[in-house]
Amino acid sequence: MKLKNSISKSILLLLLMVISVSCNKTIQNTNNGIKNEGIHPNLILTFQGVKNIRAQLGTIPVFDNTLKAVQEEIDAEIALGIETPIPKDYSGGYTHVRHKRNMIVLQKAGVLYQILNDEKYAKYAKDMLMQYEEMYKTLPLHPKTRSYARGKLFWQCLNDSNWLVYVSQAYDCIYNYLSEEERNKLETNLFKPFADHISIDNPQFYQRVHNHSTWGNAAVGMIGLVMNDQELIDRALYGIKDLKLDAKEKDDDGGFLNKDGKAGFLANIEEPFSPDGYYNEGPYYQRYAMYPFLVFAEGLHNVKPELKIFEYKKGVLLKSINALLNLSDADGDFFPLNDGQKGMSYYNDALVTAVDISYHFGKQDAGLLTIAEKQNKVLLDDSGLAVAVGIKNGKAEPFYKKSINLSDGPEGKQGGVAILRNQDMELVFKYASQGSSHGHYDKLSYSVYEKGDEVLQDYGLARFVNIEQKGGGNYLKENKTWAKQTIAHNTVTQNETSHYNGKYEIGSQNHPDLHYFSSANKNVQVSSAKVSNTYPGTDMQRTVAIIKDEDFEKPYVLDIMKVVSNKANQYDFPYYFLGQVLNTNFEYTHPKTLKPLGTKNGYQHLYLEGTGKSNKDNTKFSWLNKGKFYSLTTISDAKDEIFFTRIGANDPEFNLRREAAIMLRRKNIKNTIFVSAIEAHGSYSPVSESAVNSKSSIKELKMVLDTADYTAISITTIKGTTKLFITANTNASKEAKHTLKINNKRYTWVGSYDYK
Amino acid sequence: MKLKNSISKSILLLLLMVISVSCNKTIQNTNNGIKNEGIHPNLILTFQGVKNIRAQLGTIPVFDNTLKAVQEEIDAEIALGIETPIPKDYSGGYTHVRHKRNMIVLQKAGVLYQILNDEKYAKYAKDMLMQYEEMYKTLPLHPKTRSYARGKLFWQCLNDSNWLVYVSQAYDCIYNYLSEEERNKLETNLFKPFADHISIDNPQFYQRVHNHSTWGNAAVGMIGLVMNDQELIDRALYGIKDLKLDAKEKDDDGGFLNKDGKAGFLANIEEPFSPDGYYNEGPYYQRYAMYPFLVFAEGLHNVKPELKIFEYKKGVLLKSINALLNLSDADGDFFPLNDGQKGMSYYNDALVTAVDISYHFGKQDAGLLTIAEKQNKVLLDDSGLAVAVGIKNGKAEPFYKKSINLSDGPEGKQGGVAILRNQDMELVFKYASQGSSHGHYDKLSYSVYEKGDEVLQDYGLARFVNIEQKGGGNYLKENKTWAKQTIAHNTVTQNETSHYNGKYEIGSQNHPDLHYFSSANKNVQVSSAKVSNTYPGTDMQRTVAIIKDEDFEKPYVLDIMKVVSNKANQYDFPYYFLGQVLNTNFEYTHPKTLKPLGTKNGYQHLYLEGTGKSNKDNTKFSWLNKGKFYSLTTISDAKDEIFFTRIGANDPEFNLRREAAIMLRRKNIKNTIFVSAIEAHGSYSPVSESAVNSKSSIKELKMVLDTADYTAISITTIKGTTKLFITANTNASKEAKHTLKINNKRYTWVGSYDYK
Repeated sequence: MKLKNSISKSILLLLLMVISVSCNKTIQNTNNGIKNEGIHPNLILTFQGVKNIRAQLGTIPVFDNTLKAVQEEIDAEIALGIETPIPKDYSGGYTHVRHKRNMIVLQKAGVLYQILNDEKYAKYAKDMLMQYEEMYKTLPLHPKTRSYARGKLFWQCLNDSNWLVYVSQAYDCIYNYLSEEERNKLETNLFKPFADHISIDNPQFYQRVHNHSTWGNAAVGMIGLVMNDQELIDRALYGIKDLKLDAKEKDDDGGFLNKDGKAGFLANIEEPFSPDGYYNEGPYYQRYAMYPFLVFAEGLHNVKPELKIFEYKKGVLLKSINALLNLSDADGDFFPLNDGQKGMSYYNDALVTAVDISYHFGKQDAGLLTIAEKQNKVLLDDSGLAVAVGIKNGKAEPFYKKSINLSDGPEGKQGGVAILRNQDMELVFKYASQGSSHGHYDKLSYSVYEKGDEVLQDYGLARFVNIEQKGGGNYLKENKTWAKQTIAHNTVTQNETSHYNGKYEIGSQNHPDLHYFSSANKNVQVSSAKVSNTYPGTDMQRTVAIIKDEDFEKPYVLDIMKVVSNKANQYDFPYYFLGQVLNTNFEYTHPKTLKPLGTKNGYQHLYLEGTGKSNKDNTKFSWLNKGKFYSLTTISDAKDEIFFTRIGANDPEFNLRREAAIMLRRKNIKNTIFVSAIEAHGSYSPVSESAVNSKSSIKELKMVLDTADYTAISITTIKGTTKLFITANTNASKEAKHTLKINNKRYTWVGSYDYK
Repeated sequence: MKLKNSISKSILLLLLMVISVSCNKTIQNTNNGIKNEGIHPNLILTFQGVKNIRAQLGTIPVFDNTLKAVQEEIDAEIALGIETPIPKDYSGGYTHVRHKRNMIVLQKAGVLYQILNDEKYAKYAKDMLMQYEEMYKTLPLHPKTRSYARGKLFWQCLNDSNWLVYVSQAYDCIYNYLSEEERNKLETNLFKPFADHISIDNPQFYQRVHNHSTWGNAAVGMIGLVMNDQELIDRALYGIKDLKLDAKEKDDDGGFLNKDGKAGFLANIEEPFSPDGYYNEGPYYQRYAMYPFLVFAEGLHNVKPELKIFEYKKGVLLKSINALLNLSDADGDFFPLNDGQKGMSYYNDALVTAVDISYHFGKQDAGLLTIAEKQNKVLLDDSGLAVAVGIKNGKAEPFYKKSINLSDGPEGKQGGVAILRNQDMELVFKYASQGSSHGHYDKLSYSVYEKGDEVLQDYGLARFVNIEQKGGGNYLKENKTWAKQTIAHNTVTQNETSHYNGKYEIGSQNHPDLHYFSSANKNVQVSSAKVSNTYPGTDMQRTVAIIKDEDFEKPYVLDIMKVVSNKANQYDFPYYFLGQVLNTNFEYTHPKTLKPLGTKNGYQHLYLEGTGKSNKDNTKFSWLNKGKFYSLTTISDAKDEIFFTRIGANDPEFNLRREAAIMLRRKNIKNTIFVSAIEAHGSYSPVSESAVNSKSSIKELKMVLDTADYTAISITTIKGTTKLFITANTNASKEAKHTLKINNKRYTWVGSYDYK
């Protein structure tokens, strides 16, 4: 009995110790403030971090599972043997894919060596690096000539930079495994010339503010940190010393090479990120740029803590992660603003990096752990450890996405993106600046989502990334002729010409401005923005709202687009709905043959599938998509033309998706206003074959007032109730007091808008 | 201590009892061989069954959960009050939906009364029935006139019959709760005249072999069983006594009303089901007809066990459930053969009935329990109890779907449907008979699936079932002008005319014949069928195979369509692929304007999007759908025209989906053979942006022999290996010995085909 008792006591003691350890130990950056220069690993993994990881292996499920998966992956690669073919292909081709794969494999092998302390991984990495060293020292430029900055391993410097960002991590991991002689060989024949090629030899690629350059800067900087080469580190942070480029030259995508002479990693943080963390090219490219931003920052934090990189520009790098996560729909897919491939989501590995780093170096936001749980993998480093421990300890909480306004521009003064959210409805209102060379000419456009499904779509880019059969996996010409054009978006096109005449020079010198953003009332989320100069002499203002009203099943969208011009124009206003047409309240004709709607600016890609005229005060249209019903109600008059269009004309290689729009056209008019409501309602199941609430709840939409100062819209439901939405077009501050008489009734309120 | 011990012993005893009860008690039909006449409930629920259910409540999770959900549903309905509006609407309209809902609610309320023994449910059902009695006794014909057989509660007798099938169950459940006077009132003013209206008053609906009549028969029979009215029961089983209809009259769908005078429930089992359990209209309508077949059979089994209904025609009712489950893809969605709405699946309530009844009255197949688990609900009767207990006892095993051949026709001699399966690939080969009025003119057509996703589609029907905005939820005119036409299917159309000239009279007198079906070799699944008379003077034979070969990533499809005619014709051969075109190995032109491909027989609905000519021996085409790559390789010569088509021409109400096909056209030729391979390969992820194995593995497809007796195709892969597939076109029995010399090489094998 005595023995038993003492065992029990020991167990109890042990248990208490375990509890106290796991309670007291919040994982912090173990190297905070410690300079790791000269110690390896020191870049992403740290000497102390590796010790911590090894100590906890087997007790941290997400980390353990990730490690196991990586180990299986790399063991399989080792079994296959090393291949470093002579470069010859574009994206998607064999040599491209192989070298891209090798960089990942090298990085992972390095990490495995550190964590598992198994020399086979170090040897494998070393052998491969030596093969690269052997090849690289005599390697000419890549034979494919399409890029403005040709790489050596790949057809563009961009991919070479990707490679070095990963491989410098591998080098750091096996640094101490190599002899000094081996290190000298690699640094002299491979790493240094490699870094020089993507920077000094290609300033048009390196010396600018652009996501390409960010990769270049990070690549040079990270290898510099491992090699402890201050010159490379400085070149990474500040750009190539004393070099000025021609400010008027352009790259492949039509962007200026270096308009104002800024360069280097810090400038690349300074310029493209707004104070809210919005990245000016949009979420798809932010995701792409994220990895070098964060992984180089992590390295700088570890090796050069005195730089306080995560506090740079008021902590914008960590803010940008929050912004990016908020730029995703309910499924985690990023909104395809500007050039963006649909389906890219926070399940991408770059976001594993972002979420883990944000958690570890930020404020340990418990919401991030829920996303990490969904990702179901972590970085195999200190930050991944922190996340895995957080999840294990049950700290995860839901990541709530609310309505949010993200300013654009280095100082947050070049427009922005507002996301309105209410229950399952999301509206993405884009009043951002041009967005660099990946920008679209779609000022004041929007897209609408229900529970992660597109209701009114943004087309995204015209490209099949990495699918070689489609233009080598690169941008297709339809990206310029269609996807970037104004008519491809849910906004106004004047006289069949794109905003800023489709010219990057004009677009990048202009931007819309926020009029107001109001999310205080949880039932009424509103944003309003204005733009001039999209067309000389024409001003546009759009006010969008998501309104939860008891007489509607789901929150509905109210959309007010006001156009004021100094001359008569034609205005086209499309809604790119997805799904099947159900019915309309207007007559239309269906042509016997389908012809393109126009000849240029995107119109050449639209077939005209139907032509109608509104014969009522409200034009109504309903459709069905993925088992949900939608209705558009728009204020119209007898002169409004209504078109059904479909994408696909002049698309000889079937590069575009055959999707539809309903389009309003007003001709020969100076000032006009488009007012619409979009309702999501009901459901249809092909299993039960029951159609629930398949009809619009709106009886009438009416404009009761439209002056320079106010626009007032009444919404009457089929139940007979009427609500009035009044937006202030001029003085719209939160504190502004308004008194207004409409039809002899007095309305008084404080703030940007009124709804009652 | 003594007390405690005795308690422990009691608990132990109780526990042993429980175990012994649950171990020994296999749930059997508790009324087997017992006549339940005069005892209530006796139809679906039985007196003894209710006792068993009550005894096990709270211990059978699936049953308990279903019960709870039903109780919540009905409690909510009771709270809303009873509404029995005067009928006026078509499908989808208010009165239609309400009466449809009431029938379900009545049936469930009845069941709840029995199981929970709570009078509130009986009272609710009684009150609603009395309201119906009050209304029905003076109710005229339904005001909508579109049906060939107008109902009173609904616009068609079919829906009235649905109502009575459900409501007779409710009546049975509360039979003993009602006074004799109340029963007399209901039977005299509601049930008897209701049964007469859908039978004697509408023989054109009732007196035939058709899914409509099955509902009618079941309705009359079930109320007959509850009322113990032998005349009604006989009318249900054998049809209206001494009545003959005009054999040439047709119904709304173009089907003959009563070609050969057969009628009644037994004839409706006899005629449409083949000995394999295939239902001649196809799975979508089998699912619809299933419920009255099975629920009336269950009632007959309980009240008239001497009929041995489940053994009728060698147990075809239970066989048909197995056939139906096999006519679904990997997700449980039924193949949309003939008129079938996509998305209908074994999650439909009719299949809950089917699975539970099949398990209980059949051989307790453990695979059915897995489907029941997925359905996550059971019938609230003896059979649902058996399933719930089976699941609870861990008896569920996977339901494996293998390759299967299902004969068509009352004696299995009118063609059939072969489903070839290998890993994730499924090929549905339709060589069935006309399929009654819901049949399509698509002899020897097929569709291909990968893991539940369509690769080459069958269009299905042109209808939005129960969506009022689309033609009242009924068949759209495009169902006849497009969906039924041959050109809408993956088979040969001769001279732009549908099979059998699109005439039901001809179609229903002809059918293809099975040549062979071979699934013995798990790597090579093959079926071959022949048809004459689709066009006078033209014979067609198609041989399809799914082949798993080590040089291919996934099983590939081989497709050999042989056409022999006594005159020169034009043959069109489309492949309705889904997804985005990747590339082709031939040049084609894209027209500036889209025109319809033809003027009739479905051609008027196809736009011509591209026209090309083959310039190689093999025409190749690849596409991407839902992240998977596909390639078509087809043997061609320079005279072959290749078209890209898209559905949607002459479709002024957007009733058709804008989907595409690639089509081969051969003109002015008598005999021809179309030989193609379809490969599924690789994958694409928009998250990782990696394209894996995006290219075809086939280097060349070659016809090395084609005689009356044999067709031999060689398949050469990019690895350089060559396989030969030889199919016997005449003597193809399993035992047949073949010796054949091709290019001086001798091939010897036994059986229908050879592959090596």
